Amino acid sequence: MSQINQHKILLDEDEMPTRWYNVMADMPTPPPPPLHPGTGQPVGPDDLTPLFPMALIEQEVTTERYIDIPEEVQDVYRLWRPSPLYRAHRLEKALGTPARIYYKYEGVSPAGSHKPNTAVPQAFYNAQAGVKRLTTETGAGQWGTSLAFACEQFGLDCEVWQVRASYDAKPYRRMMIETFGGVIHPSPSELTAAGRAILAQDPDSPGSLGIAISEAVEVAAQDPTANYALGSVLNHVLLHQTIIGEEALLQLAKIGEQADLLVGCTGGGSNFGGLAFPFLRERWAGTTNPVVRAVEPASCPSLTQGTYAYDFGDTAGLTPLMKMHTLGHDFIPDPIHAGGLRYHGMSPLISHLYETGEIEAKARTQNDCLAAGVLFARTEGIVPAPEPTHALAEAITEAARCAETGEEKVILTALCGHGHLDLAAYDAYLNDRLEDHTWEDEALREAVAKALTKLPATVN
Amino acid sequence: MSQINQHKILLDEDEMPTRWYNVMADMPTPPPPPLHPGTGQPVGPDDLTPLFPMALIEQEVTTERYIDIPEEVQDVYRLWRPSPLYRAHRLEKALGTPARIYYKYEGVSPAGSHKPNTAVPQAFYNAQAGVKRLTTETGAGQWGTSLAFACEQFGLDCEVWQVRASYDAKPYRRMMIETFGGVIHPSPSELTAAGRAILAQDPDSPGSLGIAISEAVEVAAQDPTANYALGSVLNHVLLHQTIIGEEALLQLAKIGEQADLLVGCTGGGSNFGGLAFPFLRERWAGTTNPVVRAVEPASCPSLTQGTYAYDFGDTAGLTPLMKMHTLGHDFIPDPIHAGGLRYHGMSPLISHLYETGEIEAKARTQNDCLAAGVLFARTEGIVPAPEPTHALAEAITEAARCAETGEEKVILTALCGHGHLDLAAYDAYLNDRLEDHTWEDEALREAVAKALTKLPATVN
Repeated sequence: MSQINQHKILLDEDEMPTRWYNVMADMPTPPPPPLHPGTGQPVGPDDLTPLFPMALIEQEVTTERYIDIPEEVQDVYRLWRPSPLYRAHRLEKALGTPARIYYKYEGVSPAGSHKPNTAVPQAFYNAQAGVKRLTTETGAGQWGTSLAFACEQFGLDCEVWQVRASYDAKPYRRMMIETFGGVIHPSPSELTAAGRAILAQDPDSPGSLGIAISEAVEVAAQDPTANYALGSVLNHVLLHQTIIGEEALLQLAKIGEQADLLVGCTGGGSNFGGLAFPFLRERWAGTTNPVVRAVEPASCPSLTQGTYAYDFGDTAGLTPLMKMHTLGHDFIPDPIHAGGLRYHGMSPLISHLYETGEIEAKARTQNDCLAAGVLFARTEGIVPAPEPTHALAEAITEAARCAETGEEKVILTALCGHGHLDLAAYDAYLNDRLEDHTWEDEALREAVAKALTKLPATVN
Repeated sequence: MSQINQHKILLDEDEMPTRWYNVMADMPTPPPPPLHPGTGQPVGPDDLTPLFPMALIEQEVTTERYIDIPEEVQDVYRLWRPSPLYRAHRLEKALGTPARIYYKYEGVSPAGSHKPNTAVPQAFYNAQAGVKRLTTETGAGQWGTSLAFACEQFGLDCEVWQVRASYDAKPYRRMMIETFGGVIHPSPSELTAAGRAILAQDPDSPGSLGIAISEAVEVAAQDPTANYALGSVLNHVLLHQTIIGEEALLQLAKIGEQADLLVGCTGGGSNFGGLAFPFLRERWAGTTNPVVRAVEPASCPSLTQGTYAYDFGDTAGLTPLMKMHTLGHDFIPDPIHAGGLRYHGMSPLISHLYETGEIEAKARTQNDCLAAGVLFARTEGIVPAPEPTHALAEAITEAARCAETGEEKVILTALCGHGHLDLAAYDAYLNDRLEDHTWEDEALREAVAKALTKLPATVN
């Protein structure tokens, strides 16, 4: 079998990249710095030391092109990395497209998404700095799961504040966090001043990500042996995720392919940046020239509808001001199933690259995305998380267009997680219970319907 | 890095075995045949044609040593096969053992377990025979999920009767079946005479696997374009699962290892048989000599406590009589979390091999197994389904014993599925809500406790 006809393009463990790529080294213009809300001046390392270890603060600002991945981090990465790149043969066949669709699958990780790529180094650098406990917030629970697992690997305690509405409605993520050894509290909680203040006003508060951040930050700031960890948006987080794109470049090279189009979903931007940044480096170096497109939810369209301005990262206005595409730090997105994309802002690095024309962006509705997810599940055998169905909807639309034009486009998409704990989204879609259960993209609707009637792809 | 120090031992797609192994070709004595309950005579092909296509009936009785895997089945297998073999380095380190523990991981399949290995060929042979619809029963839902996915690949309709208690309590499996295109009914249903009879007596019946089988069989028997599919116990099912053991043999050979001990969990026997049969062939050929041990739940101990006798495969007594280790076809096991192991009988092939001394068996309690599952999750990053924690408890006990004796035993275990939809079992264990939350195996308790305090394995 020729390698290009294989379903799986795998790397051996000793082919795993040993360096992260820092996009700040090569960006045509540098991104605007974060500002101290009090002074209006760029924040310095001292402003961040109550929350982060110096190694991560340095990664936040460095312009070194490559950062070595510590041996201890590589050792944990090897539990699931290099992650597989798959060619979507059966999806292509169902679409009748000459396009070649590849997906880089991060669902093989302990948490089932790309989040452990940064949780593991964050836990490592904190342990190295003598920190004993990490605090964080989590919404649907992916990030909390990742950090609980990572902390267990380096002997740290992990304490997670989960938005109460999710804590009550999605108990499986709480159970997974506990199975990995983490401690989890519904937020608002009686454990913090911030939580108590909210509960005094409303004992039945469903909580919010903003409140949960306040609680986790408060605990970390008050305990000299505790730090805080964030799962997206920041430069060092996107740095750690570049191992996705570095591996994908090696995997495509193995079969002699060049990507014409990269599509990834964007919430805070870490999965998209992780895939895209190494490809942008290659484009700037002139070795490849893919179109790079971010896909965001229509209900939380920070890139396509937000303004590019300095704004707070949290609802309460406690963080430094970041220059980013934002819907306003008090924006509350609809409760769509893709919980990981419900963030008012966008990573400053992604925002800057969008503003300078290096990447494109597009917004998609929930219904269109889940339709793409169902077609993908039935052809490729993986139920995707609602988040990456945004990228799949785009990949399927492009591939269906190629079926008309005959173009043999090479499409690479980031399948950043499985949907085993998100099946309620599919249930709502299949039973017409999605709030926005209308078709936005008529071409996609036709492509999915035609492909589903053409199944099975292997007979006839 | 020397290969033996790698975490993952992978096969390329073109190394995937292209034949299943039929253990009946080499068993020292042939297994007793199934009998017709009316005549007391061995059943013939005509007795089975209302339910199964001829290709599967032939596989049920043949003594050919190898059966070619059809190209169309290989093509679907390649979505996830060859499945990975992993070396449990971090678990070994936490146990401080010189033993080497390998696990063959089937959780990468579309359903998240080994079940698609037989669902796919069963759907293929039925489609080839012109069948339009497959019916089946499912308890917790693993098998129904697998058959729904498999039917979608070959253009068959799939109709699943799920025990109502599970249908109501575990909605995620129903949602996954529907996402893969299957139709699912709670059982008892108004759709069959068997279901209506039960509902007439008890409109709130929680159902049982026996009732669900009756409903699925009734529908298949009455519709000439429909057939029935079973996910374990039968010879052809175990045949299809031998691809697990064939791959594991190739993977161990790649790194120059020989297994000293094989452990697998047993319910109907298909996962255990799939791993063990190719190793038994090698033992009979004199090339390797592992101890082969089945581990079953203490609450459903068909091998260790059942009698070896002719009994029905279903509760209602509709199937042929099979010579097997059985607790009686009216035995109702406790509602343990390892739903896939709650079966009153044992595959006739496994039963015969146990009776003739080729394999060992052991029973383990739920608490001990889930303790092993937690240690495994925290070290290896995979939350196992409750079923394979039975094998993990045995592997961990043996490895802990090696820590005392210094023996460098090579232990191979079948990790037949992930536990993403079984997290309630871990929740019950961690919060002392398991009905049998007592330690049966003191040595295991000590080994797990010691290993958990020694975490993290990578620091110090």
